[in-house]
Amino acid sequence: MNSIPGGRRRFNELAGTNLDRIAGISDGIFAVGMTLLVLGLAVPTLSAHGTEGDLWQALLRLGPNVLVYTMSFMTLGIFWVGQGTQLNQLTRSNRTYSWLQLLFLFGVTLVPFSTALLARFPTFRLALVEYWLNIVLLGMTLLAGLQYGLRARLFIQTATETPEMAPLMRGRILIAQSLYAIAAATCIVFPTWVSIALIFLVQLNYVLAPRIPILHRF
Amino acid sequence: MNSIPGGRRRFNELAGTNLDRIAGISDGIFAVGMTLLVLGLAVPTLSAHGTEGDLWQALLRLGPNVLVYTMSFMTLGIFWVGQGTQLNQLTRSNRTYSWLQLLFLFGVTLVPFSTALLARFPTFRLALVEYWLNIVLLGMTLLAGLQYGLRARLFIQTATETPEMAPLMRGRILIAQSLYAIAAATCIVFPTWVSIALIFLVQLNYVLAPRIPILHRF
Amino acid sequence: MNSIPGGRRRFNELAGTNLDRIAGISDGIFAVGMTLLVLGLAVPTLSAHGTEGDLWQALLRLGPNVLVYTMSFMTLGIFWVGQGTQLNQLTRSNRTYSWLQLLFLFGVTLVPFSTALLARFPTFRLALVEYWLNIVLLGMTLLAGLQYGLRARLFIQTATETPEMAPLMRGRILIAQSLYAIAAATCIVFPTWVSIALIFLVQLNYVLAPRIPILHRF
Amino acid sequence: MNSIPGGRRRFNELAGTNLDRIAGISDGIFAVGMTLLVLGLAVPTLSAHGTEGDLWQALLRLGPNVLVYTMSFMTLGIFWVGQGTQLNQLTRSNRTYSWLQLLFLFGVTLVPFSTALLARFPTFRLALVEYWLNIVLLGMTLLAGLQYGLRARLFIQTATETPEMAPLMRGRILIAQSLYAIAAATCIVFPTWVSIALIFLVQLNYVLAPRIPILHRF
Repeated sequence: MNSIPGGRRRFNELAGTNLDRIAGISDGIFAVGMTLLVLGLAVPTLSAHGTEGDLWQALLRLGPNVLVYTMSFMTLGIFWVGQGTQLNQLTRSNRTYSWLQLLFLFGVTLVPFSTALLARFPTFRLALVEYWLNIVLLGMTLLAGLQYGLRARLFIQTATETPEMAPLMRGRILIAQSLYAIAAATCIVFPTWVSIALIFLVQLNYVLAPRIPILHRF
Repeated sequence: MNSIPGGRRRFNELAGTNLDRIAGISDGIFAVGMTLLVLGLAVPTLSAHGTEGDLWQALLRLGPNVLVYTMSFMTLGIFWVGQGTQLNQLTRSNRTYSWLQLLFLFGVTLVPFSTALLARFPTFRLALVEYWLNIVLLGMTLLAGLQYGLRARLFIQTATETPEMAPLMRGRILIAQSLYAIAAATCIVFPTWVSIALIFLVQLNYVLAPRIPILHRF
Repeated sequence: MNSIPGGRRRFNELAGTNLDRIAGISDGIFAVGMTLLVLGLAVPTLSAHGTEGDLWQALLRLGPNVLVYTMSFMTLGIFWVGQGTQLNQLTRSNRTYSWLQLLFLFGVTLVPFSTALLARFPTFRLALVEYWLNIVLLGMTLLAGLQYGLRARLFIQTATETPEMAPLMRGRILIAQSLYAIAAATCIVFPTWVSIALIFLVQLNYVLAPRIPILHRF
Repeated sequence: MNSIPGGRRRFNELAGTNLDRIAGISDGIFAVGMTLLVLGLAVPTLSAHGTEGDLWQALLRLGPNVLVYTMSFMTLGIFWVGQGTQLNQLTRSNRTYSWLQLLFLFGVTLVPFSTALLARFPTFRLALVEYWLNIVLLGMTLLAGLQYGLRARLFIQTATETPEMAPLMRGRILIAQSLYAIAAATCIVFPTWVSIALIFLVQLNYVLAPRIPILHRF
């Protein structure tokens, strides 16, 4: 940290430098978001004469919702792992990086809304596109954090490490976003459930990380 | 961390390695889940002419709900202690272990739903079985984390410690799950409140840890 | 940690030993609880022709609720400071101490319920007594943690410190609980708002810590 | 920490000294608050024959709400960065400082209420003034923490640092609060949306920190 001419150190040089606080608020927002998702699963109500059979039917009708909520939990899990990996490589933070992370977290707080929208209107292209835009926001802010962090030299600096890490993480985000975009674009021709299934598969790929060489070159 | 042939270190080797972040998101999800449980206790509404006696009756009617919520708080407490014990024995984490923990936390986020379902339909076998399956999911993912952690050598390695810790934690999970299964199976023959009482007793056993030698050989 | 005869170390000796996790879940539960309190303040709804004057009236009617919510925020703040002070004096934890803290946190999760009950029925003795019992639960579990911690030698051990700390913290809890009990008992003779005002004053005393020698001998 | 005459160290000297706990509960409250903001965005409901066009209209009607929620996320982000910067400069805490932070956090928990009020009544001066008073509470408690921390010598003490830091952070808060006050006062003459737009601009200025010399002298 260099002083500014005149010996006055600007506030902005001291702001947002604490990596632990970024991790703390991130874990909090992800935790609240993940728990709220499942809250969206409304416990069925039955008439006074409802039977176990009626409850079974009511729970089965929750099925599609459970799928959408599981998908969103995976979305949040994937981006939690991704952000954690990026933060782990940092040696320090600064004000701009903190705000890029807050923008990323803004995207995280939108996930329960996008999920509830898609769960209520699973056959509407508009709900699907909104959900996809949420994923785009998460991916782009994560990428912006990476790019800015490199430029501002916030990452661990070793002779061998940075040159290979940067394209690795960047490539991973771009490939994932391309797959999400293809999955979302499918809804132009096919019903929305095809897109939902494809997004689900893309996510399973990143959760389970099978050895599909072409997807894991990065 | 060994590099992969060709000198390219894969993203997955760097992902999910931060134990503090796993602890952070876990504490967050448990905290939100535990607080939401009690939110399920709806504050009674009375008519304009309601008396203290009416409120007393309304609170008494909350009684069974309070039991179910207390039971769920114990469930979450038991698994919070169990996960904490496992994490405490780790020296490091990796991507797969992180995802096993996220699957465990997915089970945690389901507890408020299972609890609300059982609180609304305490006499329905289906609600009880769903609740029990939630406990099974928690136990199995905790066990999976243990087994994987051992195989991937994530645990503290000392000459004397690992050999005895592994069967200890594994045996504890399996015995607890057997007791829960017996309690749940009871509902085939008896009314569901017998099962609920038995699950409650199993949990009290793990909370209070009395000296019952046969249960605490592990 | 001594091994048990026969060389088998019991699970319970390894469980609940992590002070950071206790602090983490505590901060999470207090944070969720404090935020949920204010959620209880329902944003007024007005008819389509509502004026600013109508909104002003509606906000004024929220006044008593704001008082109850502020009181509960103070309650949570006082016990958060109290628990933090106790945890700060510990060098280690164990399974029993962790469960005493979970019981304390169970009391914390009940505060939003007790608050909403008192906010809805501020003139009902029953609501006041329930609120007071919640405070008693918080105080008694904090005291139990202190007493157990001393007996189990979890606290910092120095020649001079422990002997003076123990009666200090114990005396503080007991005096506070006596004041709360007097405030609550007042409702036998006087209307409940007298008790509410007294509890409010007791809390202000602990928040502001004025120099009233008799209250701060401990 | 000096002992009190007579060798009795008072409870208050030991209370609230843990900076990590203050950071922990702050991150938790900010995280819950930020996530709850977006929960305020109600997922539209359509009639059984609703079309994609109807959903599009419903989402467009959410537009003003989205603006208010985004503004509140920025409010919380700005104060999270501000508080983090202040805490980062501390070497220790004490009981009074902890309570000033709790008062600040009380202001944070009010933000979802103020936001929902303004989102429901965006044309009412009263809602705008309430929102502005919330910002004033946040600014004044942050300032009080700074002033008290300086007086109680809680900040990092170096020959060169403290003298320049204090006016820097104080000046920043006072300038920001003046801008917010001007923005709010505008509603005396102009419609409330002018004030909302001005508050939005003030916040963008602090988020993006463009090089406007007069605003960033401090």
